[in-house]
Amino acid sequence: MKITTRVRKILANYESDNPGSKANLARILMQGRLGGTGKLVILPVDQGFEHGPVRSFGPNPVAYDPHYHFQLALDAGLSAYAAPLGMIEAGADSFAGAIPTILKLNSANTLTAAKNQAVTGSVGDALRLGCAAIGFTIYPGSDQAYDMMEELRALAAEAKAKGLAVVVWSYPRGSLSKDGETAMDICAYAAHMAALLGAHIIKVKLPTAFVEQPEAKKVYEQQKTDIAGLPARVAQVVKACFDGRRVVVFSGGAAKDTASVLDEARAIRDGGGNGSIIGRNTFQRPREEALKMLDTLVNIYLGKQ
Amino acid sequence: MKITTRVRKILANYESDNPGSKANLARILMQGRLGGTGKLVILPVDQGFEHGPVRSFGPNPVAYDPHYHFQLALDAGLSAYAAPLGMIEAGADSFAGAIPTILKLNSANTLTAAKNQAVTGSVGDALRLGCAAIGFTIYPGSDQAYDMMEELRALAAEAKAKGLAVVVWSYPRGSLSKDGETAMDICAYAAHMAALLGAHIIKVKLPTAFVEQPEAKKVYEQQKTDIAGLPARVAQVVKACFDGRRVVVFSGGAAKDTASVLDEARAIRDGGGNGSIIGRNTFQRPREEALKMLDTLVNIYLGKQ
Amino acid sequence: MKITTRVRKILANYESDNPGSKANLARILMQGRLGGTGKLVILPVDQGFEHGPVRSFGPNPVAYDPHYHFQLALDAGLSAYAAPLGMIEAGADSFAGAIPTILKLNSANTLTAAKNQAVTGSVGDALRLGCAAIGFTIYPGSDQAYDMMEELRALAAEAKAKGLAVVVWSYPRGSLSKDGETAMDICAYAAHMAALLGAHIIKVKLPTAFVEQPEAKKVYEQQKTDIAGLPARVAQVVKACFDGRRVVVFSGGAAKDTASVLDEARAIRDGGGNGSIIGRNTFQRPREEALKMLDTLVNIYLGKQ
Amino acid sequence: MKITTRVRKILANYESDNPGSKANLARILMQGRLGGTGKLVILPVDQGFEHGPVRSFGPNPVAYDPHYHFQLALDAGLSAYAAPLGMIEAGADSFAGAIPTILKLNSANTLTAAKNQAVTGSVGDALRLGCAAIGFTIYPGSDQAYDMMEELRALAAEAKAKGLAVVVWSYPRGSLSKDGETAMDICAYAAHMAALLGAHIIKVKLPTAFVEQPEAKKVYEQQKTDIAGLPARVAQVVKACFDGRRVVVFSGGAAKDTASVLDEARAIRDGGGNGSIIGRNTFQRPREEALKMLDTLVNIYLGKQ
Amino acid sequence: MKITTRVRKILANYESDNPGSKANLARILMQGRLGGTGKLVILPVDQGFEHGPVRSFGPNPVAYDPHYHFQLALDAGLSAYAAPLGMIEAGADSFAGAIPTILKLNSANTLTAAKNQAVTGSVGDALRLGCAAIGFTIYPGSDQAYDMMEELRALAAEAKAKGLAVVVWSYPRGSLSKDGETAMDICAYAAHMAALLGAHIIKVKLPTAFVEQPEAKKVYEQQKTDIAGLPARVAQVVKACFDGRRVVVFSGGAAKDTASVLDEARAIRDGGGNGSIIGRNTFQRPREEALKMLDTLVNIYLGKQ
Repeated sequence: MKITTRVRKILANYESDNPGSKANLARILMQGRLGGTGKLVILPVDQGFEHGPVRSFGPNPVAYDPHYHFQLALDAGLSAYAAPLGMIEAGADSFAGAIPTILKLNSANTLTAAKNQAVTGSVGDALRLGCAAIGFTIYPGSDQAYDMMEELRALAAEAKAKGLAVVVWSYPRGSLSKDGETAMDICAYAAHMAALLGAHIIKVKLPTAFVEQPEAKKVYEQQKTDIAGLPARVAQVVKACFDGRRVVVFSGGAAKDTASVLDEARAIRDGGGNGSIIGRNTFQRPREEALKMLDTLVNIYLGKQ
Repeated sequence: MKITTRVRKILANYESDNPGSKANLARILMQGRLGGTGKLVILPVDQGFEHGPVRSFGPNPVAYDPHYHFQLALDAGLSAYAAPLGMIEAGADSFAGAIPTILKLNSANTLTAAKNQAVTGSVGDALRLGCAAIGFTIYPGSDQAYDMMEELRALAAEAKAKGLAVVVWSYPRGSLSKDGETAMDICAYAAHMAALLGAHIIKVKLPTAFVEQPEAKKVYEQQKTDIAGLPARVAQVVKACFDGRRVVVFSGGAAKDTASVLDEARAIRDGGGNGSIIGRNTFQRPREEALKMLDTLVNIYLGKQ
Repeated sequence: MKITTRVRKILANYESDNPGSKANLARILMQGRLGGTGKLVILPVDQGFEHGPVRSFGPNPVAYDPHYHFQLALDAGLSAYAAPLGMIEAGADSFAGAIPTILKLNSANTLTAAKNQAVTGSVGDALRLGCAAIGFTIYPGSDQAYDMMEELRALAAEAKAKGLAVVVWSYPRGSLSKDGETAMDICAYAAHMAALLGAHIIKVKLPTAFVEQPEAKKVYEQQKTDIAGLPARVAQVVKACFDGRRVVVFSGGAAKDTASVLDEARAIRDGGGNGSIIGRNTFQRPREEALKMLDTLVNIYLGKQ
Repeated sequence: MKITTRVRKILANYESDNPGSKANLARILMQGRLGGTGKLVILPVDQGFEHGPVRSFGPNPVAYDPHYHFQLALDAGLSAYAAPLGMIEAGADSFAGAIPTILKLNSANTLTAAKNQAVTGSVGDALRLGCAAIGFTIYPGSDQAYDMMEELRALAAEAKAKGLAVVVWSYPRGSLSKDGETAMDICAYAAHMAALLGAHIIKVKLPTAFVEQPEAKKVYEQQKTDIAGLPARVAQVVKACFDGRRVVVFSGGAAKDTASVLDEARAIRDGGGNGSIIGRNTFQRPREEALKMLDTLVNIYLGKQ
Repeated sequence: MKITTRVRKILANYESDNPGSKANLARILMQGRLGGTGKLVILPVDQGFEHGPVRSFGPNPVAYDPHYHFQLALDAGLSAYAAPLGMIEAGADSFAGAIPTILKLNSANTLTAAKNQAVTGSVGDALRLGCAAIGFTIYPGSDQAYDMMEELRALAAEAKAKGLAVVVWSYPRGSLSKDGETAMDICAYAAHMAALLGAHIIKVKLPTAFVEQPEAKKVYEQQKTDIAGLPARVAQVVKACFDGRRVVVFSGGAAKDTASVLDEARAIRDGGGNGSIIGRNTFQRPREEALKMLDTLVNIYLGKQ
């Protein structure tokens, strides 16, 4: 597999990482239809844990089968598939070597009020299951934020020493207003903290034009920073990821109509983001519809649509 | 590299430390334009974690790039560069051996109310990244102060056994009035606790003439201690650092005008302090302006201005 | 060094301890002008941590220098010097072998309300710094008392396994009335718990004639126990220390006039206590005055004054 | 990457292995021009250690550069590249993700008479360097054979737990006649022992028609086993590898003319072997000549020549 | 310290190493008068262990003092000082930070016949003593060669993980003729094995025109390899060090006249070697004479003489 110049440039930014972690990053970045472009689309299926199976898989019951998601990611030519322990265990053998997997090491659920997550997997699990990366969520702003960061610190250090990549979901909540959770300044802050914690790939929500912190508002105004359009806001998040030295992908959020999903992807692309992490908007649709939407999504990142 | 008499005298004060920690202290004290003088200026860039990237780097957007700060510290002839894990990882290879680095092992953020910090790095990280020292913040006065001190104890012991130096940021908060956080007696107390905890280099804020504790006030009055001018107050902090047996540097605090920064440096110098740790006041300015200010700052410590 | 019969008898009481711990006890008991008498005077300098440097060293600024205290203990012919990590580190090399040191492994400060202390040193530190003993404070009566006792358990076990002696500061507070903290029954109780926790040397405050617990009061009355005079009360504490099988020393408390300090020492001696642990009342006086007072103090324990 | 049916069938034979090891086997079996066919060609460059650099690289001096071999394997569309620690370290970053690597964990050299090898790498090295497999040589028949097998046991167990594949070089020597080292029965025996030791991929020499052990000879004669032609002998080795349930590759041995190399490959293919491991016969030739020969070799395994 | 382009190019060859090891390599390559040139001269003083103090230091008795050698290396502007545990311990504090040190972790002596060495230090020692690298000798060809390599493997892995550099002395002996120990092919072989074992800096003896192995002789003849002059032979060793991707230095061998030492240095320079490791020929001369010779030696590497 000839690694493209584009991907080699991205890898070079991870300058203190060992070749093992870089090789796993390369596997993700060279996989599927976007392989070699520096763009990526990840299929995450942790909603069963987060929202329960009925809400997650009820709308498209074939999605109750863990194999369904491996196959969907593969057939759509995506870059990687991310899920918690049981989902990976249930398909890792059938799909060994077929698609890079990301073992999500912590998970929340709607039955528990605490703004925290349970650690439900280990680096050892990721190795035995042949995963390319570990995934971990932090909730900056929650009372447990420091504990979650310390859990991440230990797991990321172990993963890196053993040649895995580290993907961090950074979702602000707790001390913030509802609007603040997706505010421009807060998304940038969340992305930056993930980078500082050593993430190779950062996953945040798309920012709105709302600004939560008065001090940030002042800076935006003084600097006349353009945060009016979504591409401009994506560009601000990219800046917060070490000025583009770290890969950043954006989540699609709640299920929505296809046009919105695709418009967002265009904005991510135009703002210099690396791609999408898109779950509910795919597996809750009928398979053919999902594949069609993913085809367009990939084409957008390829610059064709 | 001939270690100067001045630096050898400073090293001799760390009499129970092993040669490894002293060699790393020597690297910091012999680096840059102040090398050999016993004075030092450290560039810390943990504000991205502490205040968010927008407030920190928005005013001078080239500072979003981690390499910018390594290069700034190098070009300004500073003594060391301190930052959290991700910032160091993103430049440690490109700047290997060029400038001593201090891996900040814990970090706070404005989204979390708790007067605590998350431990986000390890002594092992500091070694693999070629750092000269670890950095750690304690908040004397906070409910978590004892926990933070115990975290520091463990990390400092490991760092010292492995030949690294230990830099402690001691920032009182929690049980104190707002004025109390920078009160003369409290700054001295914070510095002294850092020394007692085994810090090689102590970092505190510049004290005001306010005195928080009645018992301390009584002593100052009885002893007719001069705390009227800033140099005199710096001298009191130096005394609290084992009568000058430990290196103590002072933070510049919030961004301010150049004249104030430089006046403070003169006071630190005249009071016998070892130097400045100055972040926002440098990297938030345009590079040329920052370099010019740092040039003057260094000249002040060299006794030229 | 011929160990005196008196000291050999004291050592024999520590019958399950290994020879290493006994040798370190012997070093303390054979040191200085009281060497061989079974009496001892310890200089503790943890007030910098406990009350801050201004209150502690401001009244006699030469005491800011850690070497000052080593030298004072040595020149006064005292038995041992006790201090937290940084203070010992700053002089352990210069005074290696000169005087037994006790590394105080936990410390409180006045900025923190919690009736607890931070563990700030380790048995490993005590060994590398050549200390004869570790020191540890417990606060019987505080909400954290059980945690502190468990910390002590672990540290004492490790210290004993490695041949160090264990000194326990037992200071009741929390659930008690202000008078109760130094009540006759409570001092005895605190001393007894330290003995039960395995202390080699126990340090308590001098008891007043106040009795906190009704049940204790009843017993004193039924038994017509003499607790009227200070010597009688000291004798009751000695009884609580396994009927004199454990060394017990008494603290001088807040700075006071010389006559009071000396009167208390006579009471300790006459009640069968082993000696004094006296900090503020020495290092906050001018050196010559402190040496003079310590000379008298030692003479009292020698039975000369 | 769609795993072919052929490769999925091969993976299914490793039925007790975890998905991680299978994914790494899949990476090797899906790589390069033979990807998906169940055939493989591995480039091994351990001859520098085994025979010295002059004999190994002198004939084609550009091969002194470690990058040369990564590039050769990649350009020829081979399945994997195997080498000792230093050779992998010197190119693992430049070629991260480009081609599966096999870290050879032990090595012999011609200066040492003992029929043994030194363990020169670890499973941890394989992980940090991003390798797909570890490689290990055993010498059945040598006095150290049991020690080597026990070393392999420990390393293979660790490698499998961490999701790596295990490649075993099984080279009989020591108690055998020179002819016996490549005897039909002995090659089959060596391959079988490697399978019994848990190898995923087995590497042996091509067997001659010579039979070393009288008991084996008797069986061949009684069973009228066909061992006359090389394809038939290859088939016997395949049988010894759990009747084809383990991948077996054959070494090219000493440098020889191209026709011989290619004839051997045809025999391996026709006998049902999985492929070649071919070092000296490639990198000791000029690059263009080597690429041409490897092109033909690959075509043979593709059934085209 | 601005790292020169030349040194940055050398560091880039250590592509899988972490920034810590590179920073320590940079310290050696940026030290002294050759700092930044890519050339280096190391002072090794392990002859006291290897040959006894009388033979080693008797000719210049001031050299019995460990400080003498630190000072000599420093005054001559050399790149590093290498010695066994005790020698480093005896000066590490006085010279902390002044010159990079290499802790030689194994040593032989003339009283023991076995062609082996005792491991006499640890990576932990190197860290606490502030060393930039560990040093280790292997004897390819000896009966203990494989054991020595396995010791090196474990120590090198630990050193690299902790950010130290690794220097390997590779001295063939045992199975070789006396001439063979410095034969062209054998020196190249020894250097290559050190590279394969992961050495950052390789130290071998200067090769003679003698060729030990018939197979190597054949290659040299077939390839018409120029091994007639010393520079050409040095070039062959450089090739064996991954075609110049690893730093290689040559030992001066037994004490000899100054002209020979300097001629050899010219040959090392002209052949593309990185420098000299020169012990006996310096410290057995009177200090002024040694300094004068080292001045010329350094000038040769600077291309001035």
